[in-house]
Amino acid sequence: MTRLDLPVVWSDEVLRHEPGAEIWVGVSTPGTEVPERATVIRDAVVAAGATLVPAVASRGASLLAEVHTPELLTHLESVYDEWVAAGFLDYPGQDRVVPYVFPTPAMLDGLPARRPTAIHARAGAFCYDTMTLIGPDTWAAARAAADAAATAADLAAAGTPVTYAITRPPGHHATPGGYGGSCYLNNAAVAVAGLRAAGARRVAIIDIDAHHGNGTQAIFYSSAEVRYASVHVDPGAGWFPHYAGFADETGVGAGAGANLNLPLDPGSGDAAWLAGVEELCRFASGVDAVVVSLGVDAAELDPESPLRVSSDGYRATGALIAALGVPTVAVHEGGYHLPTLGALTVATLTGLQDRHNS
Amino acid sequence: MTRLDLPVVWSDEVLRHEPGAEIWVGVSTPGTEVPERATVIRDAVVAAGATLVPAVASRGASLLAEVHTPELLTHLESVYDEWVAAGFLDYPGQDRVVPYVFPTPAMLDGLPARRPTAIHARAGAFCYDTMTLIGPDTWAAARAAADAAATAADLAAAGTPVTYAITRPPGHHATPGGYGGSCYLNNAAVAVAGLRAAGARRVAIIDIDAHHGNGTQAIFYSSAEVRYASVHVDPGAGWFPHYAGFADETGVGAGAGANLNLPLDPGSGDAAWLAGVEELCRFASGVDAVVVSLGVDAAELDPESPLRVSSDGYRATGALIAALGVPTVAVHEGGYHLPTLGALTVATLTGLQDRHNS
Repeated sequence: MTRLDLPVVWSDEVLRHEPGAEIWVGVSTPGTEVPERATVIRDAVVAAGATLVPAVASRGASLLAEVHTPELLTHLESVYDEWVAAGFLDYPGQDRVVPYVFPTPAMLDGLPARRPTAIHARAGAFCYDTMTLIGPDTWAAARAAADAAATAADLAAAGTPVTYAITRPPGHHATPGGYGGSCYLNNAAVAVAGLRAAGARRVAIIDIDAHHGNGTQAIFYSSAEVRYASVHVDPGAGWFPHYAGFADETGVGAGAGANLNLPLDPGSGDAAWLAGVEELCRFASGVDAVVVSLGVDAAELDPESPLRVSSDGYRATGALIAALGVPTVAVHEGGYHLPTLGALTVATLTGLQDRHNS
Repeated sequence: MTRLDLPVVWSDEVLRHEPGAEIWVGVSTPGTEVPERATVIRDAVVAAGATLVPAVASRGASLLAEVHTPELLTHLESVYDEWVAAGFLDYPGQDRVVPYVFPTPAMLDGLPARRPTAIHARAGAFCYDTMTLIGPDTWAAARAAADAAATAADLAAAGTPVTYAITRPPGHHATPGGYGGSCYLNNAAVAVAGLRAAGARRVAIIDIDAHHGNGTQAIFYSSAEVRYASVHVDPGAGWFPHYAGFADETGVGAGAGANLNLPLDPGSGDAAWLAGVEELCRFASGVDAVVVSLGVDAAELDPESPLRVSSDGYRATGALIAALGVPTVAVHEGGYHLPTLGALTVATLTGLQDRHNS
């Protein structure tokens, strides 16, 4: 088996986010976005030969300001302290920030979306689901993941062909002003901002997570120079994020035509998947750099999607992207089957690396 | 004590809605909007001398079509069956419809709000909180409450000075296309539609529930002929509905100036409350009929608001509204302290009736 020969950006801080649960249709479940995901991946890539590189603390701060609204960043930084100050820790089960009321179009009916005074209501102005809990160290972990993405972009800018950052919590569902889908800060967008700050003009994000990255799409939806391209399980077949990821979302304004969504039917398997990845790569051709939103939750055993991509399929996915021949930064997104998560990640990175080395 | 001498519209069907719980910041609580609310009120008004009149089944149907979108009505009617068909009853705690993802502005970021395929996601396109659960008989009860409101409007149109409908579940948080705040169908708006269909041109809704009736406001926000006026605990002090009920919401288009919100500070008591009600009545003067959104949750012992209105305050509230001297339909909204709920309702109705009779 090929050995990995690439830098992997790591921070112990990413382990500090302990959501403890997800609330799904009103019921508390253990959740699958657990700290062990990051350690499993770390151990697998190290065993395969990769070199860990420490994330540069605070490297992502200035880049985050280009990606998210100041209101979201302030909210994420302060909400847990406000939650504690409001006395929620005195009540059973209320030790994490979970919203309960949401300013949807059906609620507001044309009224402006004010920022509620009460923290338990204000959370819903930013968080769009009940699955994405905030605990005492969520901000530290999310910031560390963004720092890891920024550090990986720096390595790419310095000439490293393929760099991978173990970003956890994941990021591609975080929009300019909102969070959800277990994502808080958009690590892929931070990597793009880092690459562009270092001189890359045109960047493509290739999102191979099993779910559509509605947050990343939103951040770059009107950009001509940053292309977003994703293959994912069809949201119209009943899958998260439900409201985005359809083929007719192609970008707006200067970004018209710079967004590509390829929704797949549940159970479609390697052939349809790889045909999709090929199409994403054609769409990305000609860019100066690529950011890969590397989720491996399209895998057969993953509990969070019905796609059936094999380990060989992931390796082939990496190789197709590598054939673009441009500096590549991979940031981790989903993947929740702990026994296979590490090997699937190594398979993808092997594909990404081999074509660069060949 | 004055005896009540007015018709009270009742349907046994309103007892069939058993939400079983509310999900609040991710935690299941017993909830306070229970069937016993309706029986407590019924027994108190009957003991005080009122005559029960049966709600006319299906009387509200055509009026609901004027109040709500067809999409909302279809959703409310079919969602529980879809929930069952999707298999949720096989899982503990998932026997009620509760949304988990919401198409907020922060999520959509400009994308159109599609209707999700999966019923567990689609619920969030209509329901804007996690407190407003739907069970097997929620639709039947909500429809019966709307029928009761329509029947009360018929009695008013036939010459009854004051009519009261025991509408439960309540309605004033239900918007044209959305539901929340323990409300599904807007009973007050149905009463308005009934009065107008019978010839009343200008109608005022005087909302004395402790919370702002964001749904009713939204339904008539651009109407010149239907005025909405509400006194309630300041949403800016951290109270539901958080996003609406502010003094600067005064109507739009033809309805500009026809909406009046009087937010009160927590703990403000009878004097501030009655000054507010006087202002609502001045605002409503000159209309052909009044609909009262009769909540008694501003009372001192109520668990759901921090206002401190006394039983005498409620009687005086009723008398101030009665002094308008126009046909009046009262529909029930909130009030959650079961030991005092009946007496507070009787006090309000006594005030409403006495001035009419004097």
